[in-house]
Parts: sequence; C-alpha cells; structure tokens
Amino acid sequence: MILSALATSVGLNLALTVLLVAAYSLLRRRPPYVEVYAPRRPFAPLEPWLAAAWRRSEEDIHAAAGLDGVVFVRIFVFSIRVFAAAAVLGLGVLLPVNFFGDQLREIDFGDLPNKSIDLFSISNVQDGSNKLWLHFSAVYIITGITCYLLYHEYKYISGKRLDYFMTSKPLPQHFTVLVRAIPVSDGVSVGDAVDKFFREYHSSTYLSHTVVHQTGKLRRLLNDADNIWTKLTNLNARRSSGEPSRKFLGLFGRNDLLGMYQKRLEDLEENVRMEQSDATRRQEIPAAFVSFRSRYGAANAIYIRQSDNPTEWQTEHAPDPHDVYWPFFSTSFMERWIAKFVVFVASVLLILVFLLVVAFVQGLTYLEQLEQWLPFLRNILELAVVSQLVTGYLPSVILHFLSSYVPSIMKLFSTMQGFVSVSGIERSACNKMLRFTIWTVFFANVLTGSALRQFEIFFDPKEIPSKLAVLVPAQASFFIAYVVTSWTSITSELTQTAALFCNLLGKCATCCKRDGSKSPSMPYHSEIPRILLFGLLGLAYFIVAPLILPFVLVYYCLGYFIFRNQLFNVYVPKYDTGGKFWPIVHSTTIFSLVVLHIIAIGVFGLKKLPLAASLLLPLPVLTLLFNEFCRNRFWPIFDAYSTESLIKKDREEQSKPEIAELFSTLVTAYSDPALKPIRHASNSDERTVPLLASI
Amino acid sequence: MILSALATSVGLNLALTVLLVAAYSLLRRRPPYVEVYAPRRPFAPLEPWLAAAWRRSEEDIHAAAGLDGVVFVRIFVFSIRVFAAAAVLGLGVLLPVNFFGDQLREIDFGDLPNKSIDLFSISNVQDGSNKLWLHFSAVYIITGITCYLLYHEYKYISGKRLDYFMTSKPLPQHFTVLVRAIPVSDGVSVGDAVDKFFREYHSSTYLSHTVVHQTGKLRRLLNDADNIWTKLTNLNARRSSGEPSRKFLGLFGRNDLLGMYQKRLEDLEENVRMEQSDATRRQEIPAAFVSFRSRYGAANAIYIRQSDNPTEWQTEHAPDPHDVYWPFFSTSFMERWIAKFVVFVASVLLILVFLLVVAFVQGLTYLEQLEQWLPFLRNILELAVVSQLVTGYLPSVILHFLSSYVPSIMKLFSTMQGFVSVSGIERSACNKMLRFTIWTVFFANVLTGSALRQFEIFFDPKEIPSKLAVLVPAQASFFIAYVVTSWTSITSELTQTAALFCNLLGKCATCCKRDGSKSPSMPYHSEIPRILLFGLLGLAYFIVAPLILPFVLVYYCLGYFIFRNQLFNVYVPKYDTGGKFWPIVHSTTIFSLVVLHIIAIGVFGLKKLPLAASLLLPLPVLTLLFNEFCRNRFWPIFDAYSTESLIKKDREEQSKPEIAELFSTLVTAYSDPALKPIRHASNSDERTVPLLASI
Repeated sequence: MILSALATSVGLNLALTVLLVAAYSLLRRRPPYVEVYAPRRPFAPLEPWLAAAWRRSEEDIHAAAGLDGVVFVRIFVFSIRVFAAAAVLGLGVLLPVNFFGDQLREIDFGDLPNKSIDLFSISNVQDGSNKLWLHFSAVYIITGITCYLLYHEYKYISGKRLDYFMTSKPLPQHFTVLVRAIPVSDGVSVGDAVDKFFREYHSSTYLSHTVVHQTGKLRRLLNDADNIWTKLTNLNARRSSGEPSRKFLGLFGRNDLLGMYQKRLEDLEENVRMEQSDATRRQEIPAAFVSFRSRYGAANAIYIRQSDNPTEWQTEHAPDPHDVYWPFFSTSFMERWIAKFVVFVASVLLILVFLLVVAFVQGLTYLEQLEQWLPFLRNILELAVVSQLVTGYLPSVILHFLSSYVPSIMKLFSTMQGFVSVSGIERSACNKMLRFTIWTVFFANVLTGSALRQFEIFFDPKEIPSKLAVLVPAQASFFIAYVVTSWTSITSELTQTAALFCNLLGKCATCCKRDGSKSPSMPYHSEIPRILLFGLLGLAYFIVAPLILPFVLVYYCLGYFIFRNQLFNVYVPKYDTGGKFWPIVHSTTIFSLVVLHIIAIGVFGLKKLPLAASLLLPLPVLTLLFNEFCRNRFWPIFDAYSTESLIKKDREEQSKPEIAELFSTLVTAYSDPALKPIRHASNSDERTVPLLASI
Repeated sequence: MILSALATSVGLNLALTVLLVAAYSLLRRRPPYVEVYAPRRPFAPLEPWLAAAWRRSEEDIHAAAGLDGVVFVRIFVFSIRVFAAAAVLGLGVLLPVNFFGDQLREIDFGDLPNKSIDLFSISNVQDGSNKLWLHFSAVYIITGITCYLLYHEYKYISGKRLDYFMTSKPLPQHFTVLVRAIPVSDGVSVGDAVDKFFREYHSSTYLSHTVVHQTGKLRRLLNDADNIWTKLTNLNARRSSGEPSRKFLGLFGRNDLLGMYQKRLEDLEENVRMEQSDATRRQEIPAAFVSFRSRYGAANAIYIRQSDNPTEWQTEHAPDPHDVYWPFFSTSFMERWIAKFVVFVASVLLILVFLLVVAFVQGLTYLEQLEQWLPFLRNILELAVVSQLVTGYLPSVILHFLSSYVPSIMKLFSTMQGFVSVSGIERSACNKMLRFTIWTVFFANVLTGSALRQFEIFFDPKEIPSKLAVLVPAQASFFIAYVVTSWTSITSELTQTAALFCNLLGKCATCCKRDGSKSPSMPYHSEIPRILLFGLLGLAYFIVAPLILPFVLVYYCLGYFIFRNQLFNVYVPKYDTGGKFWPIVHSTTIFSLVVLHIIAIGVFGLKKLPLAASLLLPLPVLTLLFNEFCRNRFWPIFDAYSTESLIKKDREEQSKPEIAELFSTLVTAYSDPALKPIRHASNSDERTVPLLASI
C-alpha cells in the first residue's frame, strides 16, 4: 500500500466517523429515536453527549453500569495509556529511524504520496545497523510500561471489587450455595435429603433450600404465551392510538385477530396452570439452592468438599437470582459431557470455515490475484479510486461484517456447555470469541495459506520467531487499514445502526416490533475480544510498523467516549460479576506482549543483530513470571472472598434489619420463574415486565 | 538375540536369584546379621520367611508399615493381576500366532536354540494378515482389564484411606494448620500477630500456636555434637566389651581419644545451650503452626482464603510433627523461587548426562559395534559364552548400577525445592524419578541417537506412532534381557547387599559403624518408579513381543513376597501419607496404556492393516476419559477429607479423654527439635534415640 492509499482510507473513515457522530447528535433528541438512543431513560438527555461523557466520574459509571461497566471503561483507560506511551516512542523515535534508513531504496517511488508505507517500517533500516538498538530498547521500555500499568490496573480493580463487596447491600447470592448431584434414595424427596444433610453438617448456619424442578415443557408453553401476549398488547396499543384497521391479505380484521389471540392465550394459560400444579410435585432435579445464615457459612459449604464421594453433593457459588440460566438445569451430567465435546468440535469447525473465508478476503489486498480470479472485473479494477478502495477498504469491511455474526454463535456454544448463569455463559463466550478473533483475524492473516498449513508453524517451535518476523511485516498494510476501518465500526455503535433499522421497520410491520420496555444489555462477550484485538495488533506491530500506533490510539479514544455514553443511555446491566472480566483482559495483554517479543526476536535475527535477539530472550520469561506473580497476587480475589472480608461483613450487618428482611425473602428468591403464577389474560392491557425477562 | 542367549540369561539370573534367596535364608537367623535382616525386631524370626510373607494379612501390613506399606503391596497385587491376564493372552494367543507366521523366514536359523527371538514377535506375522485382528482384540481386552482393575484398586484404596482416617486416634496434624507469609508490623511479634488474627476470625475454634524460629546455625552445632556422641558411644561400647586398645597410627590411645571427644562434646553443648537461650527471643520466621479445637475448624482455615491479600496468611495442611522438615523454614520465598528454577535446570542436565551413558551401554547389545570401539577385546568377545554374557547381561547390569545413584540426587533436588515435610520431599522425588526412569531407560533406549535428536520425534506428532512402531520392536531383546536381569536386582533387596557390606566393614573400621538403633525406612521414592517401569515395559511390548510378559510376571511375583517380608523385618515407616502414593501409580499406568495404544496404532499401520489402526484411535481417547473420570471420582479423597468425615470424626471424639490429652500436648507438639534441651555429655553411656532422628 502506498501512502496516498492510506490517506484515502483514513479520509474516508474519518468522514464516515464524523458523519455518524453528526447523525447521532442530530437524531438522539428526536422523540421517535429516543427509544433507540436512550432506552434507559424515558427522555432525551439535554446536555451535549461528548461533554457529558467526559464529565462523568467513575462513581457515576459504577452506579449506572455496575463494576463490569467500570472494568469495561478501564480497558479503554489502560489501552489509551499504553498506546499513548507507545505512540510517543513509535512516532518520536522508531518512525524517523525507519524512514531515514535506506534498505528499501528500490521501492521509494519519489514524491511523498507515492511512497510505500513499508518505508516507515523496520524493513527499511539497514541490516546490522546500530540504530536497531533503539528498537531493542523500545521493546524493553514498552514491556516495562505495560507491565507496570497492568499491575496498577489489577490492583486498582481488585481493590474496587473488595470495596464493592464491603459496601454492597445483603444479596441472596452471598448467602446461597448451589448444590448439585444430590444422592437420593428411594422414597425420599430431594428436599428431605437436602434438609437432612445440611441440618446434620451445617446445623448452626443452615437456613433454607429451594429444590430445582424440571420445567422444560412449561417454559415452552410460557414462551408461546409470552409471544402472543406481546402481539396482543401491540394490537391494543395501535387500537387505542386510533390507527385505522387494516385487513391482513383481506382475510382477518384487527378484531378477528384480537379475538383469536385472546382465545389462544387463554388456552395456553390454562395449560400452564395445569403444568404448574403438577410440576411442583413431580419432576424434581437433584439440585437445590441452599441458603445459610451467614456469608461465611455459605463459603464453608463451597470450599470444603461435602461428601466422602466427590461426585455427590457438589457445591458452587449460586448466581444472582436474576442471573440464573434456568433451562440449563434440565440437562443431565452425561448430556453436559457430550455437549462439551460437541461444542469443542463445533468451535474448531467454525474456525476452519472462517479461515476459508479469510483466505479469500486476504486475496483482495493483492489486486493481481483478484484480477486473476475474476477477470471480468479487470477494467473496473484498473481505475485508481477503485483499486485504492478495494485494497485499502473492502477486505476490512468484509471481515468486520462476517465477524459480527460470530458472537451469537459462540454464546450458543457456551449455552450448550451448561453454565448455571447468564454471566457464566457470557464469560465463557468471551474467552471463545477471544481465541476465535485472535486466530481468525491475526494469525490467519499473518500465516497465509490453507488452514492446515497454518498449524505447521507450531510443529517447529524453533522457527516460529524467524517465520513470524518474515510474515508479520508483510501484512502491515492490511492491519493498518483494518485499524482505520474500525473507527467507523466503533462509531456505528453510537448510532446503533441495527437497532435503528429495527425501529424503523417495526413502525411498518405489524406485530413484529421489539418489546420497547426491554433495554438491551451490554454484549461484553463480543465487545471485549474486539477491543483487545486492537491491543494485540498495536503491540505486535509496535517495532515492525510503528505507523499503526496513532490509529490504534484514535480507536481507543473514540471507544472511550462512545462507550461512556452508551453505558449511560443505552445498555442496562443484566448481571454484575464484580469485575470478573478483568483477568481476561490481563492475560490477553500478557499474550500480546509475548507475541511482540517473539516477533522482535525474529526481526533482530533477520536484521543480522543476533546479540539483540539473544538479549531479548529473558524478556518473555520475565513477562510470564510477572504474569505468574499477578496470578498469585490478584487472581484469588476474583475467584472468592476471604475469611477476613466475609466475617467482617457478616459482623457489620449482624443486627441490621435488612438481614432479617433478606432472610425472609431467601426462601422464595430462587424459585423458578416458570413456576410463578401468570397473569396475562386477565390484565393484558397493563404494562407488566414480561415474566421471562430474567431468563 | 537368539533363543539360547536368552536361555543363558534366564538361567544365570535364576541361579543368582536362587543363590541370593538361599544366602538370605541361611544368614537371616545368624545373630551378627539380625541387625541387617531384621533391624525392626531384636530377634531373628523363627518361621520360614516365604511362608510368613504369604500368610500375612493386609491388616498385619497396615499395622506394621502403615497405609503406605499397604499401597506399596497393592502395586504388586495389581500388577500381578494385570500381567497374569496379559501373559495368558500373550502366551496363549499372540505368541503362537507370531511364531507360525512366516514374514521373517530369512532369520530362521533352523533348530530351536538358534532361533531369533524376533520370530516370537509381531514382526513375524504376514503383512495385512487377518490374524492381526487377534492382536487388535488383545489390545482392547487388556485395556479393558487394566482399566477395570485400576478402578477397583482406586476405589479400594480410597476406601482404606477413609477408614484409616475414621479409625485413627487423634493426631496433631489433623488439628493443625501451617500458616506462612504472616505480615508483621513493626514492634509486634509474629506470635502476637497470629494470636490477634485467629482470635478475631476463628474465635470459636482457635486453640494455640507455635511460631517457627531460625535454627540453621543451631542445627549445625547439634549435628556436630551428635556425630561426636556417636563416636563416643562406639568407643565406650568397645571398651566395655573388653576389646584391646589399639593406637591409631601409634599416636592416640583410646583413652586419649575418649578424653578429646568428651572435651569437644562439652564445648559444643555449651555453645548449643547459649544459642538456644538466644534463639527463642531473636530470630522468628513469619510462619507458625496454628492449632484448632476441631478438625473442621482447621479445614476452614485451610480451604477458605484467610486474607484479602492472597499473598499473606497462606495456609496449608501441617505435616505430622515428626515429618516436618525443619531446615526448610530457613529459606525465604525468593530463595525458594530461585531454587525451583535451579532444580529444573539441574534435572534436565542430569537426564542429558545420563543419556550419554545410556548411548554407550546401548552399543553393547551389538557386538560388532563394541569390537569396533574396543578392538583389543576382539579375541575375548569371539568366545560364545562371553559374547552371550555381553549381549545378554552386561548392558543391563551397568544400567542397574548407574540408576541406583539417581534417587538420592533426585531427593536432594526435591529438598532444595522447599517442601515442609519429608513425605512431601519423597513424593516429589518419586515423581522426578518416574520421569527420569521412563525417559532414560525406556525412551532413551528406544529412540537411539543423541539426546537432542531424540526430542525431534516430538516435533512431528503425526509420525510418532509409525516411528515408535519401527523403533520399539528393534529393542525387544534388550528389554527382555533387562527384565530378566531385574530378578537379581529385586532379590538383592532381600539380601540387603549394601547394608551387609556396611555391617561387615563396620566391624573392622573404628567409629564409622552405622547407628544400630536406627532401622532404615522404605525408600518409596526410588522403589515405586523402578517397579512401575516394568509395568510400562510389559504393556509397551504386549503386542509387539509378548515373550516379555512371563518375565515381567515373575518379577512382580518375586517382588510381592520379598517386599511383604522386608516391610515386616527391615523397614520402619518414617511417615504415613495415608496412601497418597497411589495416584502416582494410577496415572503412570494410564500413561503406559496410552504408549501401548500409540505403538499398536503404528504397528497396524506398518503391517498394512489401516482399518485396525483407525479402529484403535478411540481407545486412547476413551482411556484418557476414564482417567479424567477417576480424577474426579477419587483424587479429591487423596487431597483432603470431606465435611462429612471431619464432622463425624469430631463428634465421635468430642468427649473422649484422648482429645483433652492431645490438646494439652498440641502447644509443644510443633516446637523445633533443635530448641529442645540436650543431654549428651551428662549421660553419654545411656542409649537414647538421637535428637536429630526426626529431622
């Protein structure tokens, strides 16, 4: 790619970004779009959004989006700090050194716009030149800065997590344990077995229990009822707003429809009621939520194995009652094992299929190859603008578009694996997405060739650095373009393009409008991997092509403002893991650093400076030791609370009225929402929160 | 190797075995050797040892050697069962099939004694023959049998472990927790900090604590005192038995020596006393043994993190007071980290050095090569007996001899790593030895060539089965000879050759006699890996060369009788881990099975039966799943006791007088033996157990 192509791409994306921001600023206060741009608030906020986003404090974010929201914003803060330092080093030191090297004299096409951006990469420095020691020092410096910031952030967030726990009001999940694999002998109900066991071994702290029931069939019925009820309320709302009645294909009038839906709803609810009265007595699952009188009592039941047979009476943290993923309980232990295996195979297949697609997209950056594949396009491709568009822009757009479908597939996979909570599902999906993103976007583009051939590099570990040192710089232009394109994609988060279309369409189509009372929740599992990918790109290209750094920095700055706005106006937190997403961010950054080291070792080898390559060898080892230290120092805080915290908190609240209040609700807190009485048909006009909102 | 060479080797080893057994049977009742052959008993047992070994029940073994002794014997029981089944399959089905194949017609030298033992191996079966399906079925059958027996043993031993806990008398280690990394602010002693913390957070169960002190210098002084005291008692014993006084080099008479030693001992003891009175006040280490009123209380302190900062107040199980490895506490956290790294490098170096030696020994099985290396031996080597001796016997002897030095090195390595207990050190050394043995004996002999080239096979995982399928059968003769030689080595355990020589020498040399009052303890860390190696050899050669199976079976039968005898008469248990060695045996057997599968897959590939190779692929997967299941089902039992057991046991003993008794001793149970008052000089004639016996 030459400099002018890059400029075209930057210009185009900048224009699009500004356009989107302008559109957002205009639309967000218009009444019909408030539902899209501020679903959390019934009104359009008056102050300018950028200023508001800037002014908000972390406490505000904590109050609005929970600790997970804070962690999400800290990812941007952390990344901005890292890449500000990196950009200073890169643009101030490395870029000039690269540009004034003369290794690549033959591709220097004269005037500035026609210069290849390779002239700004390390490839342009003379082999064996002493200037390479500047690059060497830069690697050490950026690693040091990043590790210092990582330590600082981990400490800060784990402190936040402890504060959050100490200041939280009493919550059911602190006092409750999920017990699974309860052994039941004939003639004894699960409830009796639980009662007997915990009265025996936890007599002083045991409070109550809720047995889980098989409710798959009931859930399907309720789902149907819920759908029909939504349609009914939509129809009613239209009627009361005085819209004229239209006949659907001339067959049914609105009143016919109303009557039909009403009838079906009543039938369904009758069925549900019958099922409910049966279910409580019949299909118990050998799992129960057991509540204790103190947090420490619950911790005792979780961390000390309960039964002599380790496969029985298995205990784990209970999730927030609203966070429980109920359908999961219907699956047996064996089904979960099989599902895990299936999910593993499916994830691998997904990556392989995706790699095929990437291999094609990859080809677009080389015009000649494209012309060879699609000869009829030759005339068009020879136009300068088109060729710059195609090489600089199109591949990234395709990649962005395809990637947007993967998160929901990964979430589906995680659901199949059998987590007990929505937050657990999303954290697992986040890890899957991360692996998928790093593999299909970074490695697949670097290690060109067929999917199977890509794996070959790992069979010859000694060769990895030198191979990467050749392959990574070759893709610099592609990734710079990719980062630039991402500006548009992160700004389109602001304009909520998909929701906007949905809203506009919903206006026309009957009965398919999204339920307006439900604000969307933040899709951490798809956003975090996407954000972290740019950290990997920035660090991997730090010494190879420092030109990428300012673009990455701009991306993070945009993201910082946009998401601070979105967390306030658009997304409602669905759960609060208490910052459990941070360890994922930490380990991904460590991974990115090690990738940087490996590439640097390879590059110094290729550049005939073997001493520098050898002197870099301790760096990945030290980085991994640092990671190990952090794992010992901070990770346990994210896994569980300590005796110290638990007992302090228990003592503090011992005599508070909230505790007595909580204890009285604990008995019913974990009852399956499918078993709660329904009340659609009787008051279908009233705007109640749908029963399944928490499922 | 031809059949007659094998017969020579078998004959020779059988003769040696019988000779050693005869020597033992004769010597063991002679008074001077009772000290060697029955150090645990003051008298020579009257009954014939073989009959006694046979007759003893498992309860007897448990009483005499603890649960570890039972586990050790169960290794033989398990192996005998597996290889009895394997031998029936191998000799009854596979061996005839192999022998009546005709792939290797050209190496069939006519009469039986000259037949190559390769004729009994799978190499002799026609490529692509349907008879190979018998081998295929045999692999499935033996895997099934082994897994069934593994499950059965794991269940049996974990049951034993639970019984052992439930029936044990109250022991200090059940009520005690080792706390490390105690944060101490200025002006507060470690003891006060511990007291404050546990009174605050474990008020109802906290009992007492013992702070650990820095005693390195003291320990060295005590060691010196102990050595001199041993010499003194030896001299005194000689004088009282009326042996004439001899002058050492004509310089010192016995009385001069006596006086000199007495003087030095008094000086040393004075020093020790001074150090002791200082040490109690000065050098505290931020670690303490904290005792609780109940087992469940101690478990609470271990399994729930104590402090908000995970690097402080770290808790773990306290070992038995006699099992504590005191010198360890002197090392700091940083020293331990460095030591771990050094140990890792040292272990790798040890394996590399050893591999060089093995490469030489390896050459001995090929006479031509030896003649080439050492041409002056040609005349001797051409004698039939010598050549058979050299090819069939010498290499194994050298390997056995060298291997005998490694366990103590590995134990030294584990000591450096910083375990708090002797049992921990020996279990870690056992794992190290296992890796060492499998690598240097099995893989190094199979993958001939330089140490570095051996690793190459692992860089090309797809080729491993076919490479092993070529290399493993080539070494069949070597390993058959190795197993046969091992008969002698296991029988020499019975005659205690080293101890016997030591005893005989001790009679002549002054002052270097081993302390007779101390019975040796069972070296599990060197014996278990050695025994498990034969399991690996037997399974790896199961389909390739079934001729090895009866020899392995004989080895295990010999071992069964010999060790049942030794555990009663020779070894005194130094510690009791409660069967924690079994998981090592389990996982090693799983590893051996997977090696068998990989070899089998390679062999069927080479033998042009690709269908059989493909149909074997699920077998290693199933075996590993089985292993995973066992890890979930049984392993936690070996890691910790359950709430159920702990509370039951606590309740049972609540009001027993033993508990009150134990509580009164707990305060001093974990005081460093180096800080106890000494009493050598005053009563040096009295036969007391040396102070350092438990260190």
